[in-house]
Amino acid sequence: MTWTVTSQSLKKEDLITQESLFSLGNGYIGVRGNFEETYGTDIGEVRGTYINAFHDVIDIPYGEKQYGFPSTQQKMVNIIDAQTIQLFFGEDREPFSIHNGKILDYERSLHLDKGYYSRKIHWRSPQGKEVKIYVERLVSFLHRELFAIHLQVEPINFEGNVEIKSTVNGDVYNYVNPDDPRVGAGHAKSLRVTDTRVDNHRGMVVCETKTSGLQVGCLTQHQIETTGHYMETSEKDEKSVTFTYRFHLGQGETIQFVKKNIYVDTMRHGNDLNAAANQRMTDIEGESFSALKNVQAQYVEDFWKHSDVEIDGDPSLQEGIRFNLFHLLQAAGRDPYSNVGAKGLSGEGYEGHYFWDTEIYIVPVFLMTNPELARQLLLYRYSTLDDARNRARELGHKKGALYPWRTISGTECSSFFPAGTAQYHISADIAYSYIQYFHATQDIPFMIDYGAEVLFETARLWADLGHYRRDGKFVMEDVTGPDEYTCIVNNNFYTNLMAKHNLNWAHQIFHQLKKWDEAAFRELTGKLSVDEQEAEQWKEAARNMFLPYDETLDINPQDDSFLDKAVWDFDNTPTDHYPLLLHYHPLTLYRYQVCKQADTVLAHFLLEDAVKPETMKHSYHYYEKITTHDSSLSTCIFSIMAARLGDIQKAYQYFIETARLDLDDTKGNTKDGLHMANMGGTWMAIVFGFAGLRIKEDGLYLAPNIPEDWERYSFHVQYKGCSIKTEVTKHEVKMELIEGDDVSVHLYGTLYNIKRNTPLVLTIKQTVS
Amino acid sequence: MTWTVTSQSLKKEDLITQESLFSLGNGYIGVRGNFEETYGTDIGEVRGTYINAFHDVIDIPYGEKQYGFPSTQQKMVNIIDAQTIQLFFGEDREPFSIHNGKILDYERSLHLDKGYYSRKIHWRSPQGKEVKIYVERLVSFLHRELFAIHLQVEPINFEGNVEIKSTVNGDVYNYVNPDDPRVGAGHAKSLRVTDTRVDNHRGMVVCETKTSGLQVGCLTQHQIETTGHYMETSEKDEKSVTFTYRFHLGQGETIQFVKKNIYVDTMRHGNDLNAAANQRMTDIEGESFSALKNVQAQYVEDFWKHSDVEIDGDPSLQEGIRFNLFHLLQAAGRDPYSNVGAKGLSGEGYEGHYFWDTEIYIVPVFLMTNPELARQLLLYRYSTLDDARNRARELGHKKGALYPWRTISGTECSSFFPAGTAQYHISADIAYSYIQYFHATQDIPFMIDYGAEVLFETARLWADLGHYRRDGKFVMEDVTGPDEYTCIVNNNFYTNLMAKHNLNWAHQIFHQLKKWDEAAFRELTGKLSVDEQEAEQWKEAARNMFLPYDETLDINPQDDSFLDKAVWDFDNTPTDHYPLLLHYHPLTLYRYQVCKQADTVLAHFLLEDAVKPETMKHSYHYYEKITTHDSSLSTCIFSIMAARLGDIQKAYQYFIETARLDLDDTKGNTKDGLHMANMGGTWMAIVFGFAGLRIKEDGLYLAPNIPEDWERYSFHVQYKGCSIKTEVTKHEVKMELIEGDDVSVHLYGTLYNIKRNTPLVLTIKQTVS
Repeated sequence: MTWTVTSQSLKKEDLITQESLFSLGNGYIGVRGNFEETYGTDIGEVRGTYINAFHDVIDIPYGEKQYGFPSTQQKMVNIIDAQTIQLFFGEDREPFSIHNGKILDYERSLHLDKGYYSRKIHWRSPQGKEVKIYVERLVSFLHRELFAIHLQVEPINFEGNVEIKSTVNGDVYNYVNPDDPRVGAGHAKSLRVTDTRVDNHRGMVVCETKTSGLQVGCLTQHQIETTGHYMETSEKDEKSVTFTYRFHLGQGETIQFVKKNIYVDTMRHGNDLNAAANQRMTDIEGESFSALKNVQAQYVEDFWKHSDVEIDGDPSLQEGIRFNLFHLLQAAGRDPYSNVGAKGLSGEGYEGHYFWDTEIYIVPVFLMTNPELARQLLLYRYSTLDDARNRARELGHKKGALYPWRTISGTECSSFFPAGTAQYHISADIAYSYIQYFHATQDIPFMIDYGAEVLFETARLWADLGHYRRDGKFVMEDVTGPDEYTCIVNNNFYTNLMAKHNLNWAHQIFHQLKKWDEAAFRELTGKLSVDEQEAEQWKEAARNMFLPYDETLDINPQDDSFLDKAVWDFDNTPTDHYPLLLHYHPLTLYRYQVCKQADTVLAHFLLEDAVKPETMKHSYHYYEKITTHDSSLSTCIFSIMAARLGDIQKAYQYFIETARLDLDDTKGNTKDGLHMANMGGTWMAIVFGFAGLRIKEDGLYLAPNIPEDWERYSFHVQYKGCSIKTEVTKHEVKMELIEGDDVSVHLYGTLYNIKRNTPLVLTIKQTVS
Repeated sequence: MTWTVTSQSLKKEDLITQESLFSLGNGYIGVRGNFEETYGTDIGEVRGTYINAFHDVIDIPYGEKQYGFPSTQQKMVNIIDAQTIQLFFGEDREPFSIHNGKILDYERSLHLDKGYYSRKIHWRSPQGKEVKIYVERLVSFLHRELFAIHLQVEPINFEGNVEIKSTVNGDVYNYVNPDDPRVGAGHAKSLRVTDTRVDNHRGMVVCETKTSGLQVGCLTQHQIETTGHYMETSEKDEKSVTFTYRFHLGQGETIQFVKKNIYVDTMRHGNDLNAAANQRMTDIEGESFSALKNVQAQYVEDFWKHSDVEIDGDPSLQEGIRFNLFHLLQAAGRDPYSNVGAKGLSGEGYEGHYFWDTEIYIVPVFLMTNPELARQLLLYRYSTLDDARNRARELGHKKGALYPWRTISGTECSSFFPAGTAQYHISADIAYSYIQYFHATQDIPFMIDYGAEVLFETARLWADLGHYRRDGKFVMEDVTGPDEYTCIVNNNFYTNLMAKHNLNWAHQIFHQLKKWDEAAFRELTGKLSVDEQEAEQWKEAARNMFLPYDETLDINPQDDSFLDKAVWDFDNTPTDHYPLLLHYHPLTLYRYQVCKQADTVLAHFLLEDAVKPETMKHSYHYYEKITTHDSSLSTCIFSIMAARLGDIQKAYQYFIETARLDLDDTKGNTKDGLHMANMGGTWMAIVFGFAGLRIKEDGLYLAPNIPEDWERYSFHVQYKGCSIKTEVTKHEVKMELIEGDDVSVHLYGTLYNIKRNTPLVLTIKQTVS
């Protein structure tokens, strides 16, 4: 059943986690997998619905505020709840709840192949009424504003009254936890209801955020099929709208009940939300739930055609990779306002903020499977370039753009700069993703219109940040690399290497742009006041960029002083003291050689031609011993590098930790939302890891291996307009061109041309580390 | 008039600053120099009364809270206001205010020689009534709970009604400014009134803090002398008590009105504040205001006998030094609960917190003039040793004590750890002050009872913080030195040198203690589980302590990477961008060679025998170029070191900036309170700077110089029970033993013995730099 994720558990501690696992989304709306009827009073839940980028602006409190600390941040708001549907049975209106009566049968499923969710319950009421309830839900990929619920009610041993109460509620709160830095600390109440109305069997609730002044509306309409009789009543109060349907069923009669909810907001739909929502509702009014399911299935099937990864020999990992890819599809923003939150649209962890996770862990997946989505994500960064320029000025840089460490609308939302704003590398990460996009698509118009400007402005940041040391090296001080267990360091290897790449490509694109489109070149360079001399300075800075290297160990130290520090005392660290960040003060962590996540190793993966293979190998082994993987962004990178070094067994172990991280809740905080970057990392561990794929300036590279436990795996990639399917068995690698005419790939170091209908088949080469 | 600080200004912008300048205190109570009648509505004031260490506990807000960040802090509370006295004249009750009518004459003065404040006003009311008002105030050094106001009212051109309304008000607020990190950001309202009562002509207001549950009471009683008739009425509401006196004056009749206020609190006076206050009021009930003034004058005269510094040739600097010393006397806490706030008791800047300012800038003054006060300040640190031990555990140290960067009751109150908790040097600063105290007093019982334990526990901190690098050096990473423009660095020279001193002396006292008192030795070492082996480790760590040194420049770099950084672009920094911390993000500052204050130079002053004189000289010149003196703790140190290097003219320039910093409000924030450390620094610049005094293990050292502009200066020091007066003229140095039998001093490098009645006179030696 690797196309369906299923659970029969109703355990209290599982339910809140499954709200994330069974969440639905389409990049615009996200709905957590709450129960329509709620759990009952004593079970914690995070009842959540979100719109990507829909946020309030809240004050950031400081005990001691310094210059340049952001005074406000954006916060993704839990919006109007349309999930709620309550059921009552019999004359005495026995309410349905897992809390009352007895559950005779229960199962819920996420249908990865078709893009919907289902839940079936066979329930006996305290007074003995038995009823089967079957719920289906979908958040439409085609109609981005639509969240629909289908309810089938089937009385088993009784006749008579059934009541369905369906509510749209604007009185909602965000989840807060002041002691976990990974969750919002305050500002639970961000929305107030500005309008409720019932009109022509449609109920509408409109809310406004406290500070940002954004509005969101939810319009609901019901479709009912039954052979029984029923009566509709509706009521509204200041905060909600409720429709009540009272049925009288005869023997064998059932109810088919559909609740369609249209979400609109003033960022996307103009100021007349009522009109916008009604228009969209009218557009789909005639569609039955099964018709909606059908078009949903078509969309999802098309996605899998370009994205599916098959693993023969391990159903649980097969489930993991598909689950992760499906949630990535659900999370990715598709308009210039939105991106992919650290938790997607599945929960409130990290307050809906966008991080470097997008560029380093998610864009690569879409770039290779769905380049249009990757392009959208890059465009979002372009749309916030002015904010990044302003932020660079605030940080004292005369030129350039400094992207925020975490944001929704484009301004810095990090209040703890050592592990926030100091992570300058995000600007290089964004530049890297533009360069990768260009390698994979050769989309020159995109580079002319957007890429060049982003590359120039980020290159300028490095040129201004760094300076030439007495020995002539270009050095960059007081930044934080990806590893947040060592902050504010000099010459972080990752940052310097990525910045070098950024500077080189800015220089290169500067000259390319002139050839591609001289008018565009003149316009852009005029607008930015950039000239050839400045571009030469970028190249010079890149050429002289200092990259820490330790001769004795033949490794790249994480930063200038990293190797001077003592190694963390792992032997005397109790297992319940992980993640370390929840048990040690930052200063304690900073003083030791201990890494939260891949840092230098990640740089070696992203730019593997920058240093000698031996140095990468030694570095990998060195950092492996001191990395805790307290970040969910770590094991996938170690998996990729283990594979790169030929240690497939080790790569496989890391991959296992990666692939089912949320499904098995191994970090213990899946309730706050899914770890989207790790989900991308799962795909990367297969394609970049086992299959050794790399996108470089001069082409696509592969060097596939296969883990011992697997019989076969396959995946698809899009590359320069072609679609290529790769299958790897224990004995051979087969590459087949599915779309496009022909394509060149470097397989195990040799360049091959693959033509349509002529698969390339090679014997597998097992590298030995 | 160098014994009196006087002002005739009623300018709006001067008034709020003068509230600090004309504040009164006695180490227990502090009262700002507000006007009894208030200014009128449109003039900002910080109407403040404080009790040293009387605080509320408030939550510290964080956007992203990390492990070990303090969740609460203490905040000095503005307490019950007893300053308020309003005057009304004539049948129509014309209210007196500088806001109404016309000021014909006005002056106020702080009488440094007698310890009181006076204000005289000749005022004409809008309707033409003229009256002379003369106010005197004192906060008693003898009766620490007493704040008394004397009011003389003299009608000039009218007879009849005069009304005096005297209030005790518990409805008070703290001053807040969320945008200045040097002032409290929130929590304006910390007190609620729990009781108001009028009993037997005495009015009492009791308040309680919101969270800490501390209570403060103010009991007020009036004494009136007049030949006219008057009637007393009193009223109380929920928050205040008011006494109204209605006088009917005949021609030439005047009023002498005394308001005595007794402040008590539950930290010092037990739970029955009413009884405690009444007891104390009864004790002084019979004392006239002039009797109180007399004993006050005696106390202050005695202080000056041991502390006065005379400067012939510059009245404004003479005023400066006396003003500063007087305020130090007013600020210093005299019980184990209290210390010296960064602003003393003169304002709310830094929320009444105690910093390293005490040990490095204030204890030295008292140690040399009033050693009993120095001892009290050290005892305060001993009383918070358990908190420091706990904090060390929170910061991951297995042993030792880490003192908080800022505190009142002993726990860390800093919410910005890079320039807070990371300033580990405070623990070495405290150890240093214990060692200095021992050098100056040879107080062995003190070292047995308190000093040894503090030295052992601070030494343990360094032993645990540092580790042996590959080259065998003992290194200490990720701390912040005194200079807050470069934070979280490796091997800060200041910290390492001070820690080395701490470790050496802990080792030395360990062995001394055994000789002094074997029972005490056994008890302490048993309690702390410290043994000879551990003491040897301290010595070894000290011996191998890494001290950054740059051979090319022959200077001590501030830290490992300081010299790699670019020098700040001073030429292109607008003058209105100072202090830099209010105009640049911390990361911007961290990236440059730019210092807020003396750091390495301070280490060279405190431990001048640690490095070669040439290195000190080169370092001084190097750091001088890159130091902004944005901290008020900086110029005095540069003055001392300039004098040390023989550049008396430069020393003099720095001294000028130091001596009148508050009187001239050169930092622009004297309104928030006086810069106490700078006030100590003024004295230090004279005694340690021009006179070259040092307290070392083997005795007292002097090498006096004199600035060109001065004819003569003199000062007193206490040393090992002796009192020595030193006079320096352009030609000679004269040292005279005032108290004690004989004493040895090193004068210009030669050891002399000074006997009673036989002054030592030497020709002055002008050093040339």
